[in-house]
Amino acid sequence: MSRHRNPLLKQAFRPPGAVPVNSEPSGEPVRITVIDYDATHFEEKIVEKISECFPFRDTETVTWINVDGLKNPKIIEDLGKCFTIHPLIIEDIFNTGQRPKMEDLDQYIYLNLKMLSYLDDSKTIKIEHISMVIGHNFLISFQEDIGDIFDPVRERIRKEGKIRKLGPDYLAYALIDAIVDNYFVVLEKLEEQVEDLEEELVASPTPVSLQKVSRLKKDMIFLRKSVWPLREIIRNLEQSESALIKEPTRIYLRDVYNHTIQVIDTLETFRDMVSGMIDIYLSGLSYKMNEIMKVLTLIATIFIPLTFVVGLYGMNFKNMPEIEWDYGYYMVLVIMGVMVAGMLIYYRKKKWI
Amino acid sequence: MSRHRNPLLKQAFRPPGAVPVNSEPSGEPVRITVIDYDATHFEEKIVEKISECFPFRDTETVTWINVDGLKNPKIIEDLGKCFTIHPLIIEDIFNTGQRPKMEDLDQYIYLNLKMLSYLDDSKTIKIEHISMVIGHNFLISFQEDIGDIFDPVRERIRKEGKIRKLGPDYLAYALIDAIVDNYFVVLEKLEEQVEDLEEELVASPTPVSLQKVSRLKKDMIFLRKSVWPLREIIRNLEQSESALIKEPTRIYLRDVYNHTIQVIDTLETFRDMVSGMIDIYLSGLSYKMNEIMKVLTLIATIFIPLTFVVGLYGMNFKNMPEIEWDYGYYMVLVIMGVMVAGMLIYYRKKKWI
Amino acid sequence: MSRHRNPLLKQAFRPPGAVPVNSEPSGEPVRITVIDYDATHFEEKIVEKISECFPFRDTETVTWINVDGLKNPKIIEDLGKCFTIHPLIIEDIFNTGQRPKMEDLDQYIYLNLKMLSYLDDSKTIKIEHISMVIGHNFLISFQEDIGDIFDPVRERIRKEGKIRKLGPDYLAYALIDAIVDNYFVVLEKLEEQVEDLEEELVASPTPVSLQKVSRLKKDMIFLRKSVWPLREIIRNLEQSESALIKEPTRIYLRDVYNHTIQVIDTLETFRDMVSGMIDIYLSGLSYKMNEIMKVLTLIATIFIPLTFVVGLYGMNFKNMPEIEWDYGYYMVLVIMGVMVAGMLIYYRKKKWI
Amino acid sequence: MSRHRNPLLKQAFRPPGAVPVNSEPSGEPVRITVIDYDATHFEEKIVEKISECFPFRDTETVTWINVDGLKNPKIIEDLGKCFTIHPLIIEDIFNTGQRPKMEDLDQYIYLNLKMLSYLDDSKTIKIEHISMVIGHNFLISFQEDIGDIFDPVRERIRKEGKIRKLGPDYLAYALIDAIVDNYFVVLEKLEEQVEDLEEELVASPTPVSLQKVSRLKKDMIFLRKSVWPLREIIRNLEQSESALIKEPTRIYLRDVYNHTIQVIDTLETFRDMVSGMIDIYLSGLSYKMNEIMKVLTLIATIFIPLTFVVGLYGMNFKNMPEIEWDYGYYMVLVIMGVMVAGMLIYYRKKKWI
Amino acid sequence: MSRHRNPLLKQAFRPPGAVPVNSEPSGEPVRITVIDYDATHFEEKIVEKISECFPFRDTETVTWINVDGLKNPKIIEDLGKCFTIHPLIIEDIFNTGQRPKMEDLDQYIYLNLKMLSYLDDSKTIKIEHISMVIGHNFLISFQEDIGDIFDPVRERIRKEGKIRKLGPDYLAYALIDAIVDNYFVVLEKLEEQVEDLEEELVASPTPVSLQKVSRLKKDMIFLRKSVWPLREIIRNLEQSESALIKEPTRIYLRDVYNHTIQVIDTLETFRDMVSGMIDIYLSGLSYKMNEIMKVLTLIATIFIPLTFVVGLYGMNFKNMPEIEWDYGYYMVLVIMGVMVAGMLIYYRKKKWI
Repeated sequence: MSRHRNPLLKQAFRPPGAVPVNSEPSGEPVRITVIDYDATHFEEKIVEKISECFPFRDTETVTWINVDGLKNPKIIEDLGKCFTIHPLIIEDIFNTGQRPKMEDLDQYIYLNLKMLSYLDDSKTIKIEHISMVIGHNFLISFQEDIGDIFDPVRERIRKEGKIRKLGPDYLAYALIDAIVDNYFVVLEKLEEQVEDLEEELVASPTPVSLQKVSRLKKDMIFLRKSVWPLREIIRNLEQSESALIKEPTRIYLRDVYNHTIQVIDTLETFRDMVSGMIDIYLSGLSYKMNEIMKVLTLIATIFIPLTFVVGLYGMNFKNMPEIEWDYGYYMVLVIMGVMVAGMLIYYRKKKWI
Repeated sequence: MSRHRNPLLKQAFRPPGAVPVNSEPSGEPVRITVIDYDATHFEEKIVEKISECFPFRDTETVTWINVDGLKNPKIIEDLGKCFTIHPLIIEDIFNTGQRPKMEDLDQYIYLNLKMLSYLDDSKTIKIEHISMVIGHNFLISFQEDIGDIFDPVRERIRKEGKIRKLGPDYLAYALIDAIVDNYFVVLEKLEEQVEDLEEELVASPTPVSLQKVSRLKKDMIFLRKSVWPLREIIRNLEQSESALIKEPTRIYLRDVYNHTIQVIDTLETFRDMVSGMIDIYLSGLSYKMNEIMKVLTLIATIFIPLTFVVGLYGMNFKNMPEIEWDYGYYMVLVIMGVMVAGMLIYYRKKKWI
Repeated sequence: MSRHRNPLLKQAFRPPGAVPVNSEPSGEPVRITVIDYDATHFEEKIVEKISECFPFRDTETVTWINVDGLKNPKIIEDLGKCFTIHPLIIEDIFNTGQRPKMEDLDQYIYLNLKMLSYLDDSKTIKIEHISMVIGHNFLISFQEDIGDIFDPVRERIRKEGKIRKLGPDYLAYALIDAIVDNYFVVLEKLEEQVEDLEEELVASPTPVSLQKVSRLKKDMIFLRKSVWPLREIIRNLEQSESALIKEPTRIYLRDVYNHTIQVIDTLETFRDMVSGMIDIYLSGLSYKMNEIMKVLTLIATIFIPLTFVVGLYGMNFKNMPEIEWDYGYYMVLVIMGVMVAGMLIYYRKKKWI
Repeated sequence: MSRHRNPLLKQAFRPPGAVPVNSEPSGEPVRITVIDYDATHFEEKIVEKISECFPFRDTETVTWINVDGLKNPKIIEDLGKCFTIHPLIIEDIFNTGQRPKMEDLDQYIYLNLKMLSYLDDSKTIKIEHISMVIGHNFLISFQEDIGDIFDPVRERIRKEGKIRKLGPDYLAYALIDAIVDNYFVVLEKLEEQVEDLEEELVASPTPVSLQKVSRLKKDMIFLRKSVWPLREIIRNLEQSESALIKEPTRIYLRDVYNHTIQVIDTLETFRDMVSGMIDIYLSGLSYKMNEIMKVLTLIATIFIPLTFVVGLYGMNFKNMPEIEWDYGYYMVLVIMGVMVAGMLIYYRKKKWI
Repeated sequence: MSRHRNPLLKQAFRPPGAVPVNSEPSGEPVRITVIDYDATHFEEKIVEKISECFPFRDTETVTWINVDGLKNPKIIEDLGKCFTIHPLIIEDIFNTGQRPKMEDLDQYIYLNLKMLSYLDDSKTIKIEHISMVIGHNFLISFQEDIGDIFDPVRERIRKEGKIRKLGPDYLAYALIDAIVDNYFVVLEKLEEQVEDLEEELVASPTPVSLQKVSRLKKDMIFLRKSVWPLREIIRNLEQSESALIKEPTRIYLRDVYNHTIQVIDTLETFRDMVSGMIDIYLSGLSYKMNEIMKVLTLIATIFIPLTFVVGLYGMNFKNMPEIEWDYGYYMVLVIMGVMVAGMLIYYRKKKWI
């Protein structure tokens, strides 16, 4: 669970709207890229000083400011002031433990969601907090780390695709779509894990497999918490009465809404499968126990009576007529043979052997 | 699960509205049939070139274009352009992993659903993606493979049935009805499987039966995902305010809606039964274990004390008076007989034998 | 499950509104009774030819036509044509696997529901499909077999009760009420079965009881499917805006609605109880196993060490001083006595004996 | 379950609105008390003849008629006629198996609910059917048996409390509140039972405790069925548009609504706890089994090899060199000592001892 | 459970609106602090006599009266009279078992909620009942005990923060936010407990761990009951049409609403994890049992046949040829060696060793 630490806790006891003071600006770098475009015009640059972004506020072209890295609160606060973003929203941008939500503030729409990526080395899922502020002529996006998930969208803007003819609402859709598409990659990886584990459980159930089940279950719970609210957010966006969401974009939002439902459906399927695994594990243990007990019972019930018989003629009584008989020994061997045969027939009938 | 691969994944990372480029036009063929009819007129042909369909767009008769096979994206794109279908819809037609959905775009209604068929050889369920575009005077349907499920509908059109007097909305109903009717065939086969498995579990529970339970459970989950959304789709179609759905068709849609609910009800019943199976399996194992342990306990508790007794008189002590007695041996035999009788009475009382 | 075969399957692949052609008119008879009444007038007869009913269509008195037996589709089709009943409704009347539903077609209301009766011989529940068509001055009811469940209603009409002063809507209520009242009889029988089974499970759990649990569970699922939709149907009837349902009847419909909820509540209670039974069965097995193992462990752990001791002095070593001692034998007996006593004290402390 | 017999069954097959004819007027007595009051006036009497109540119908003061005992249907029918109560309502008053419900009939509101009381002797919960008819200047309440639960309310009326200034709606609230307050007493008793049982299950799980769990579970189910509908009833009363419910009473109804939710919450908590009990029982059995098996395994695995060793030197072969050795016996003893020590170390390592 | 005693019970049988009479004014002290402020003005004092608060009622500045301790009903009743608070609300303030609720009474809004704090010594969660009365220019808050949770809010008022410019609705938000922030601290502690317990269950499952699971489960149930209603309360507050909640405060309420949902989500996750624990415990027991049985079976099945063999040659028959053979003893040893080897190979193949 340690990789799912609750970052909201650290934020407790601060006044609302306050940014974290102890996050020193040094450490990890912050990368700010600005893309400004309309149907005919295109400009892209990586800015050093945040104030370079401000002039774009007043142009009619679409401006996409992407901030990678949340370690420098000063920059983000300045940006917030320039674009008159509510202090609570600024706080939400930093609050990486925040549940996905959408907030319509007339002048702009704020939404945040979770980006998932599967780390092959550690077989864990990395969760990143992504925020977007959608205005009438700008979109500001915030990522926790420097990443390349939005590169295909940039490429489409550069290539003068349909995206150049539409506003920041369509850009927001394109970014959400890129994130949701990535969910399917994570699901594929999870599916592999689920199937491998299922085979392992049937083949050789050990407490280690149980721990894997437990871990997988927690991952599922966590993913669910990240993806479920997204559904409602996209629905709200699509049905929003805000003038910021234009009509032609709505069908695209419905499309990504359907993808989200598909992600949720698949997650629920996995959950169902994982939650049945502990029963499979228990059944496996029970079946093995039965097998073990059958062997024990077979050996014990055949030899224990025989041992009694040979013990019987091991007694030292003075007066034991059988002992004196010439063929007593052979007779006893025959009797024991018959006993074994009877037992074996009985067990065969019971289908134990 | 491998037969339920998630085709949406392949589609990730493509811009919205793009058709798959790597699907080469060769390989599997595409069959396009056109049926054009009204109350008095009837024309049917298999077209070679897609452009042969285009003239039908502007006639007032009902035109049903059925495309079997999705391997030639060019054809479908051309058809889309001719009938001014939104690129996202074209994408959905190709996206065979798409969840059933309905989209009302004023000029036409798009809907897709899943056709199920049971393959007797492999005892698996085949799932096919079916799309329909319903316009005011045309209906275009798309199937993944060449199939004969719509033949009865064609026959009814040829026979000048009531269907000839009604529009594309009734034709859409007839196609949906044909698909839903087929669900009952699949359910019947599933019911057989469920009942066979239930008997097997009670008669001889082995890990193989457990694997069958697990497979069946996955099939159920998958069917559920295919059928549940259909319910809502048909409901929306029936209550749609679109002018494309005429009043007389609504009662038929309510009828097929009721059939869908019946399918869902039956699926839920199967799910209930399958989800209880693992408990039956565990109970079976437990009961067998009890039986085995009873036998072991019976044999062991009878012979272990006897073995002690005979061991006692196998000791080599110089001074053991019983050994010298003339009837010592017989006395010991009698004592052991009494012990066995006592044990048997005790077990009889406990109802173990 | 075989007694719950899905009759809808047979109906698949027929065009909508078609009646079953293979149902030959011979075989089981069809009984048609007509009761025509108003506050002052009363007429009752069993008709031979269906056309005898037609004149009643145009009188203002309430006419109740009851058709027992669905084996003669011709009769029902003729009736349908005379009273202008939609072909889909006619199909629903035959479709005995149909889920209970209500359809308001302005001119008349169609509803179907399930009649339950408990067959004491086979301890099974018989389910019959009942349909009603409620018009402004007539009610046509259809039963699968000839039955006497509606006799009390007939009696009340003959006796000039309040029913004579009210219309077909109140008659429909009276019929529904008669059917729902009968549900309680079935529930009472089920309750007995549930309680008997519960006792059996605690007293002597065997795989046979498990099969009974499984069968009862299926019965519950099936009843649920028959009764749940009824609730909604009666609710819709009561809140219907149709002019066919008069104000004074609504309070009676609310009353029967409450009875339906009570039936559902009771069914849910039974379901809860039955679903807990498999756990009781497993617990019973576990407890028995514990008892068996205690006996085995007791006997084995007492005698195995003793057997070792007597084996020890059965060794044939030349030099074993104890063997030669005069009181060696008695000493060994005393040692063994002490061992047994120690064991018994230990087990007493563990509360095993 | 026998104390929860379904009284509705007896009522089946009677025409709606009919009172039970076989309930002879003799047997248990019926007590009728009338309290008539307004802010300044107060009158209280126990009436012998029901007609003494009738004059109060036409006064403007609040009249509370309380009927204890339902064994004399004649009295209640007369009362019903005088206050023009619908025959179905009269039937509901007698129908003690009736689910709690509320019926707004414009002239008056009918509601019934369940009174619970805990019988300390039998440790069972007694359920009584209470009905109320609330008119614009009267309230008639019906109880199954003569009870004293409404005494505090009477006392408050006598003491000229706030209740004197308000109408029958507030009186109804006061009665409901008295009943709901009593639920908490029953819950307290149940909580004790739940906790005692939980301790018993951990300390000494036997089939008897399992039966107690089962009984408690049924009680819970039954209480739930009595209390759940009440919630909705009070909600409906509070939000009712009926002129019978005055504005100042609504806040009191919201208050008792909150108490009902609290009762339901507590019941659900108990249900959760009881439903987990069977798992605790199973775990207890499993743990005990493990303990037993450990002892058996310990003793058996230590002594069985030793018994083999002593058996080995009990063989009668002519040529066995070890037998002849002077210290053979002691050597064997040492070997066996080492074997035991090895075993013990192994088990210690496995944490079995 | 005893720390979750239901305080509502004590309140039963009192007339509505009555305060507890047996709560003697002595005992625990009551601390009343008053803070009066607006954008420019600030005054803070601890009052001795409740009447000192009354003048603030008529000023336009925001007045926050905080009452710590509910042991002196007189004070609170006086306060209630001065601010014309409904007697039922006064009762709710005392009723510490009350479920969180909100009541809008036009002149003021009443709400109560639960404050949670984790007591490290006893590892238990302390639950405190907090009430607030929000008027147009005042807020009165009531705590059960003297606490310091509101100190950060006081500090912010003193420091002339934004809170000084806003009304009592924002103050209410600030207090709720302080309480909800504290929930995260409790959740963090619970998370630790859950993880520790999970590890314990896998490492060494004993009945003690089971009791811990059971206790944790109850804590979860209890927390859930405290937090769930809060969600709805804050939602209602945010969407309230009351003039007491100003527009600028709503976004803050939405923010704390999101935090509440996050608390609920986390609680549900814990519940999921805890509810799976009993299965892990059972699996652990089963696995251990398997291990034990493997050892027993291994030892028993190897040595029981050997013991039979040595017993065989311990028989005292006169005529046993093998006994006389010179190498009979060695032959038997070899035979036994082969038997052991065979067994070991068999078990190796079965993967038991």
